[in-house]
Amino acid sequence: MDEFQCIEQFFNKNGSPINPLLSNGFFVGIGDDASVFKLENNPPIVVTSDILVEGVHFSSNIKPASLGNRVLAVNLSDLAAMGANPLGFTLGLGLNKLNYAWLNDFSEGLFGASRLYGCDLLGGDTIKHNSAFNFFSVTAIGYIDGGNALRRNGMKLDDDIWVSGDLGEPISALQLQKESKKLIQPIPKIALGRQLKNVATSSIDLSDGLSSDLRHLMRASFPKNLEDIFVELYFESLVKCLNRNMIKWFAGKKNNLELVFLALQGGDEYELCFSAPSEARSEIRAISEKLDIPLTLIGSVRKRVVEQNRNDEKNKNDGHLWLKSLTNSFDDKYIEKSGYAHF
Amino acid sequence: MDEFQCIEQFFNKNGSPINPLLSNGFFVGIGDDASVFKLENNPPIVVTSDILVEGVHFSSNIKPASLGNRVLAVNLSDLAAMGANPLGFTLGLGLNKLNYAWLNDFSEGLFGASRLYGCDLLGGDTIKHNSAFNFFSVTAIGYIDGGNALRRNGMKLDDDIWVSGDLGEPISALQLQKESKKLIQPIPKIALGRQLKNVATSSIDLSDGLSSDLRHLMRASFPKNLEDIFVELYFESLVKCLNRNMIKWFAGKKNNLELVFLALQGGDEYELCFSAPSEARSEIRAISEKLDIPLTLIGSVRKRVVEQNRNDEKNKNDGHLWLKSLTNSFDDKYIEKSGYAHF
Repeated sequence: MDEFQCIEQFFNKNGSPINPLLSNGFFVGIGDDASVFKLENNPPIVVTSDILVEGVHFSSNIKPASLGNRVLAVNLSDLAAMGANPLGFTLGLGLNKLNYAWLNDFSEGLFGASRLYGCDLLGGDTIKHNSAFNFFSVTAIGYIDGGNALRRNGMKLDDDIWVSGDLGEPISALQLQKESKKLIQPIPKIALGRQLKNVATSSIDLSDGLSSDLRHLMRASFPKNLEDIFVELYFESLVKCLNRNMIKWFAGKKNNLELVFLALQGGDEYELCFSAPSEARSEIRAISEKLDIPLTLIGSVRKRVVEQNRNDEKNKNDGHLWLKSLTNSFDDKYIEKSGYAHF
Repeated sequence: MDEFQCIEQFFNKNGSPINPLLSNGFFVGIGDDASVFKLENNPPIVVTSDILVEGVHFSSNIKPASLGNRVLAVNLSDLAAMGANPLGFTLGLGLNKLNYAWLNDFSEGLFGASRLYGCDLLGGDTIKHNSAFNFFSVTAIGYIDGGNALRRNGMKLDDDIWVSGDLGEPISALQLQKESKKLIQPIPKIALGRQLKNVATSSIDLSDGLSSDLRHLMRASFPKNLEDIFVELYFESLVKCLNRNMIKWFAGKKNNLELVFLALQGGDEYELCFSAPSEARSEIRAISEKLDIPLTLIGSVRKRVVEQNRNDEKNKNDGHLWLKSLTNSFDDKYIEKSGYAHF
C-alpha cells in the first residue's frame, strides 16, 4: 500500500461534507493541494494545532480506534475552551508502517469523532519514517457563532474559579494500571464552551493538569502584575470533584488531601476550567443543569498583599496557587507547579 | 529552557499581525488555546498541511535559517498551486533538543518567509522527543481573492501543459553534492498562482517531480477515463527548461535526453505545472512577462486510441506520459512514474 492508496482507502470519504456549513459550491476536500471552504455568514475562524507522539501523549498499547478518536478530540477540546464550534481539521500521519487492520480501526475512531462533532477531514499529509514511535499532527478549525472567542486572558480580581466534570481518574488509572474512560475516549466540552462564551471571563481545557493549566489563565490574564494576585482553591469543593473510581481505587491508601493533590497535577482530563464573576453563579448553575454537566465552584482570584507572601517567592513567574480549607481543617497549603509538562 | 520560554523567546512576536487583513478586533495570535481571525469580505478559505521529517524531506546538514524558511515555503507552494493568498500558519515543532542558537536561526528564517509572504504565525505546538530525527508540521491558511480556487481536476482534452521556471537543479545538486538555490530557499509561486487562477484549467506545485506531479493532475481530472487520454511532453521544450547549473555540472557526462529524464523525476522544484486551453497562450505569455517568470509550453493532453497503446498497460492506473521529439530525433519514449514518493 502506498500513500495514495492509504488515503483513498481509509481517509477519503468522498461524500458530502458532514458539517452543513461547508456544503456549498466552494468546498474542496481531500485530493487537491489544499482544501477550500467558505462560510457565508462570515464568523470569526478559530485554528488550533496539536502534535501527539507515541510514548509521550499516548501509550503504545492504545487501541487504534481509541487513538483515532483521541487525535481529533484533544484538538476539539482546545476549540471548546475558546467557545468555538468545530468545522474541519487536517491530519498529519507519521507512521513507521502501513498496517491495513490498524489503519481501518484508526480511521473508524477518527471518523466516529468527526461525525459526532460535525468536524470534516479537510486534508493532511502522510509520512513513513524509521523511528520506533508514531506521531500525529492535527490542526482543527472552528468558528465563533456570534460575539467574540472565549480567551485565557480575561480573568479578573474576585472572579470565581470553576471546573467541569470530575478530576483525578486519568492520573489514577495511569498510576494503578486501571482503565480510564477519559484516557480511552476524551470528550471535548464543545456545548459547554459555547454556553460559557458570554458568561466566563477566561477559560482553558485541562490537558496538563489543573495546577498547571490554571496558572496559564493567571499568567495570560495578569501578564504585568502576576505578583499582585493569587488564586485560592477550596479543598472541600475539590473533594466533591474527585472521580469515584479514583476514590475507590485508592481507598485505605490515600486520604482526601493526598487525592486532591494528585488530582491537581493529573493531566488528560479535557474538562474546562474557567473564571467568572460571582454575579454569574446562578447563570452558570443553570448551564450545568441544562447540559447535565457538573460545574463546581472551586476557588477565587484574590488580591495578594505582602503579608501573604508566605515564602512563595520562588514561584513568582508561575502564579500563586493556595489550597484553603473552608472548614479550617488545615493551614493554607501552597500548590506547586506540578502539572505534567510535555516539554 | 522549557516549552513556554521557547515560544516566548523565538516565536511570540507580540506585535500587530503582518497581514493587514488580520488586523481587526477579532485577531488572537499565539498564547491561547487557539488563534482567531475574521475576514470582513468573507472570501473562501484555503487550508493545507505538510509534515517535514529530517532525513526524508530535508538533510540533517541543512542550516537552521534555511529550514525555518523551508517549512513555511513548501506549504505556501501548495497555496500558490490553488491560486490562494497566504494568510497565516500554525507550526508544530518535534525536536529532540532545545538549542538556543539553533532556535534563534530557525525562527529568523521562519519569520523572514512569514514577512516576505504576509503569512502570520497563528499558533502551534512544541514537542520534545527522544528520536534521532526532528520533524515539523505546518498548516497554512490562505484565501481566494475573487472567484474559485485553482484545482487539480480541471484539465481538459487538447489543453496545453505548461511549467514555470527551470527544472533539474535540486536533483542534480543532490546527486553531485553541489549547492542548489531551490534546496536552500524554495520560492512559492504565489503571484503566479493568483494570475493563473482564471486562466489555467488545473495546477499543481512540483514537489515530488514533474513525471509524478503531472500524473496527479491527470488522475484528478480524468478519474473515470484516465485510459482515454495521454499527455505528450515535448523534448525540445523541456531542454529549454533545463537549469543552467545542471547543464554545466553534467557537461560531457549526460546528454540532453538523459538530463531531461533526470529533470522529469527531480523533486523539490516548487515550480507550478498547469494546464490551459490553447486559446490562453497569449494571455499566459503576458503573465510570464509581467511577473518576469519563465513559463514554457511543454506538452499537451491528447486522446488515446487503441493503436497508441504501445505496451503501456502496466501503468494504466497512473496515467500515460510520453516524451515526443518535435524534430523527430527519436521515437516517442514512455515516461515511467519515477517521481520521488515520500511514502
